This record gives sequence, structure tokens and C-alpha cells, in this order.
Amino acid sequence: MGLNSVLKFFLPKDRVFFDLFENVADNLEIMGKKLKEIVAETDYDKRAALIKQVEDLEHKNDEVTHRIFTELGRNFITPFDREDIHYLASALDDIADYIYASAKKINFYRVNPNDIGISKFADLIEQGCIQVQTAVKELRNMKNVRSITDALVRVNSIENQADDVFDLSIERLFATEPDAKEVIKKREIYQVLELVTDKFEDAGNVIESIIIKYA
Amino acid sequence: MGLNSVLKFFLPKDRVFFDLFENVADNLEIMGKKLKEIVAETDYDKRAALIKQVEDLEHKNDEVTHRIFTELGRNFITPFDREDIHYLASALDDIADYIYASAKKINFYRVNPNDIGISKFADLIEQGCIQVQTAVKELRNMKNVRSITDALVRVNSIENQADDVFDLSIERLFATEPDAKEVIKKREIYQVLELVTDKFEDAGNVIESIIIKYA
Amino acid sequence: MGLNSVLKFFLPKDRVFFDLFENVADNLEIMGKKLKEIVAETDYDKRAALIKQVEDLEHKNDEVTHRIFTELGRNFITPFDREDIHYLASALDDIADYIYASAKKINFYRVNPNDIGISKFADLIEQGCIQVQTAVKELRNMKNVRSITDALVRVNSIENQADDVFDLSIERLFATEPDAKEVIKKREIYQVLELVTDKFEDAGNVIESIIIKYA
Repeated sequence: MGLNSVLKFFLPKDRVFFDLFENVADNLEIMGKKLKEIVAETDYDKRAALIKQVEDLEHKNDEVTHRIFTELGRNFITPFDREDIHYLASALDDIADYIYASAKKINFYRVNPNDIGISKFADLIEQGCIQVQTAVKELRNMKNVRSITDALVRVNSIENQADDVFDLSIERLFATEPDAKEVIKKREIYQVLELVTDKFEDAGNVIESIIIKYA
Repeated sequence: MGLNSVLKFFLPKDRVFFDLFENVADNLEIMGKKLKEIVAETDYDKRAALIKQVEDLEHKNDEVTHRIFTELGRNFITPFDREDIHYLASALDDIADYIYASAKKINFYRVNPNDIGISKFADLIEQGCIQVQTAVKELRNMKNVRSITDALVRVNSIENQADDVFDLSIERLFATEPDAKEVIKKREIYQVLELVTDKFEDAGNVIESIIIKYA
Repeated sequence: MGLNSVLKFFLPKDRVFFDLFENVADNLEIMGKKLKEIVAETDYDKRAALIKQVEDLEHKNDEVTHRIFTELGRNFITPFDREDIHYLASALDDIADYIYASAKKINFYRVNPNDIGISKFADLIEQGCIQVQTAVKELRNMKNVRSITDALVRVNSIENQADDVFDLSIERLFATEPDAKEVIKKREIYQVLELVTDKFEDAGNVIESIIIKYA
């Protein structure tokens, strides 16, 4: 039995955090894919079925996040600072919440998702989820810090691009949509989509502070 | 003199937190009742008088919250984790802020509070304040953890119901209100009312994390 | 070599936080001045040039804030509680973000900044930045706690005045602007300006909690 196995034997509760965070990150990656499918789907019923899948993933994610907070309360020893675990779990949970909220609002307001802005946001969010997943998975052994920092650089670039997509979409909306009620609806969808990318950045900032301390 | 009295004698500053939190929780319970009266009151002047009472309660609450933060800075020993005290005080303060903001906006925008959505929100908020009060009061001795967890389950149910009330209210608003300016006003009121119930959930989450650690 | 020099020699990493916070506070003071110039400037091109300057200051501020978080990860010894450093850096960063966002939105929506509400907000924000700068600069030696508390009292007064300016501006907007799309644009600008003053208060609250512990 090697040293690593001994550590795993003695610190099973410590390791649980990596399992839970990876579970969340894998969920997010699927949610990002589903959001892109939703936005590309023109059939209303098929879209509703995809949104139901995103809802289920969000509920599943809520449970895993809740489990992280419960373990945090129970465990004296944690793999990194308690507050970093708290912030990271919250940021990842927010990503799931806002992806689901975006999907729900597209259906709720019966907004045609075939819109340049919404479609670009969906691309960026799919990419962001993949980068967050990469960074989270590397936290377990920290052997490849370069791969984490590369992912974080991409997360920041995605957030910047999303800011530009937001500004252009809002500008186009006010210039071309005569109905103020439609302006309110679409603006709200753009805002929630942009919030997803803000939360990518929040997650990235926590991961960065973790690798500064531990890598 | 029993052991408990000895502890009370030696830890007076520790006990101050329970007194302050109960003071806040009692205030919230009154604010929840007043909000329901405001929403049911058709006479404009009487409504304005009730809103003034809610304003006074909110100011009183601000002072107690400020006192909690001051004690947190002064005391080395606290009954539970410093960050839990900080989060709980902030969440309870937010509940008071958003109840007052809801009442103020109803008056400010001269919105008729005789509205199915607003009225259902007021019921849920009154109930939520009572559940939060119950959970906070049990923190002092932790003898009845079951009564805390029951209150937290109800808080979560209230937050879920409020989400549905919000969605239905917004759907009805966009479908029936032709004036976009009125849509903006009512939507803002629904949003603030929904924020109150989000803060119930935040308070519930902190209380849950406290009982996991100490019960 | 006096005692103070010895301390500086032994605690260089500790002192770095004061340098960084003062750097941020000085930046904010310039940003507050620039925002007032932007609002008073009637020439569209000159205004765009001023907004570019605010953008550069905001980016510079982002880098200093990032440096504060990096130092927080690296240093074991900090001049005050780690979480207070975290909260203060975040609140000051939010002030810079929202000043820049206000300036950007005025341009973006091509809103005429020659508006009583916007102009009053700019006055309050300029004053608030000066008070925050005063309070931050005194943190280094804590010799003049009275000057800190005076600044914090003024910060609170500014936040209260800003609430009134917000309410009056929104009331006037709904009463006088017939175009709902214009209502949406101006309301968003008032909201971001008001957020700046909320963040003054957040910064003030952290500074207050620091002086309670250390003064």
C-alpha cells in the first residue's frame, strides 16, 4: 500500500470534496451543452423537453452543493481553506442556477431563441462550462497547474466577450424593437445569460486564489 | 447556582448575541404582519401610516444589526462561528430591508396592492417571518433541534411557492397590462417581494449550517 | 534606525496592503472627479474621451485589486483580519466598477446627462470618493480615528441623500417621460449611480469594523 493509498485511507472525508466538486463540474458541462441545444431547437415541444432536462440537472446540482455545505460543517480537515470551498461551491451553484433561469425565461417569455445575441451567449456558456470543468478536475492533484491557469485565462476571455455580446445585443434591441414590453423580456434574458459568465469569472477567481496558496 | 447559571455569569457577552438575534426575529415577525395589513388596506392614508410603522421597525432593526456587528468586533468568544453570525445577521437584515422596500414601492408607484400576486406574496412573507422567528429562538439552547429543522423545511417550501407566485404574476402582467410603464412598476414590486423569500432561504441555510456544527 | 523603521524592515509584506489600498483610494478620487466632468460635458466627443479615461482608471484599479487578493493568498501576516481585507478590496473595486458602468451607460444609451438627478448623483459620488479616500489613508497609522469616524458619518449621509435623489428621479421619470424605452434606459442609469453610493456604505462598514477591532 503506497503513501497515497494510506492518505486516502486516513482522509476519506477530505477526499469527498474533490468527488463532490467534480460531480458539480460534470453536471455543468452537460447543462452548457443542453443550453446550446435549447437555443438551436425550433420545435417548441422538443425545446420544452430539453428545458425539463436542464431543470432536473439543476435540482441534482442543488443536492450536491447542499452536500458540500453539510460536509463543510462536519469535517474539521478540508483540502483547502473552508472559505474557498464555500465560495467555489456557491459560484458553481450560481452558474447552474443562471443557466436554468436562462432556459426557463426563454420558454416563459416565449422569446424566439433564434437571435444572434442569445446564440452567441450559448456558445460562450458552453465553452465556459468546459473550462470550469477542466480547472475543477485538476484541483485534486494539482499536478498540472499550467492546465488550470490556461483554463482560467480562457474563462476571463469568455467573460470579456460576453460583455461585448451583451452591449451589442442591448444596443440592437433598443434600436430595432418597437414594443417596450418585448424590450423588457429580451433584456432580462440577456442579463441572466451575462450573469452566467460573471459567475464563471467568480469561480475562476476562487480557483486562482486556491492555486496561489497550495500549488 | 447550577452549571448553566455559572456559564451565564461567566459568558455574558456570549449571551448577548442570542438576545440581539431574538430582538431582530421579533421585529421581523411584526414587519411580516404589517406588510399583510398594508396590502389589505384600501385607504391610502391608513396605508401610508402603516408603511411609516414598517419604516420605523426597519430603522430599529438596522440599529440592532449594527450592534451585532459591533459585538462581533469586540468579543473574542462567540456562541457559534463568527462567519455564521455575520451571515445570519446580514440575511435577517436583508429580510427587513426588502420588506420595507416592498411597502415603500407599493406606495411610491401608487400601485393598487389589491392584486392576487401581491396578496399571495404577503401571506407567504408573514408565514416566513414566523418560521424564521421560531428557528432563531431555538438557537439559544438547541434543545429542540426538530423544531428548528421543521421551521427550515417550511422556509424552503415558502421560497418554492414564492417562485411559482412570481412566475404566474409576471406571466399575467405581460399578458394583461398594456402599459409598459405599469409593467415596469409592478414587475419591480414582484421582484422585491420575491427577494424577501430568497433571504428567508439564506437565513435558513445559515441556521442549518449552525445546527450541523453545534447540535 | 528607529523602531518604526525596524518594523518596516521586518514587515514589508504587511505594509504592502496599505500601499495598495491607498493606490485604489487615490484612483477612486480621480474617477469621482472625472464622472462629474462627464456629466457636465455637453460635447459628445469630449465626453467620450473622458469616459475612455475612466475606463483606463477602472482597468488600472482591477489590477491593483487583483494584487491585493494575490498578496492575501501569499502572506501569512496581514495588518487586519483577512476577511476585512477581502471585503474592503471588494467594496472599493465595486465602487470603481459602478462608476465606470455609469459613465459607459450614459454614453451607450446616448442619454443626455444634463439631468437634475444624474447631476446630483455625480456631486454625491465625487464627495463620497473623497470621504472613502480619507478613511482609507488613515488606516495606515490609526493615529486619527476621529478623522476616520467623521468620514464614515459623511459616507452614511451621502448614501441617505442618494436614496432620496433616486426616489425623486424615478418619480419624475415615470411622471414626465412618455416613452417606456426611455424610462428603461434612464432608470438603469439611476440604479447604477445609486449602487455606487451603496458600495460607499459597504466600504464604510468594513472600515468601521476594522477600527472597532484595532483602534
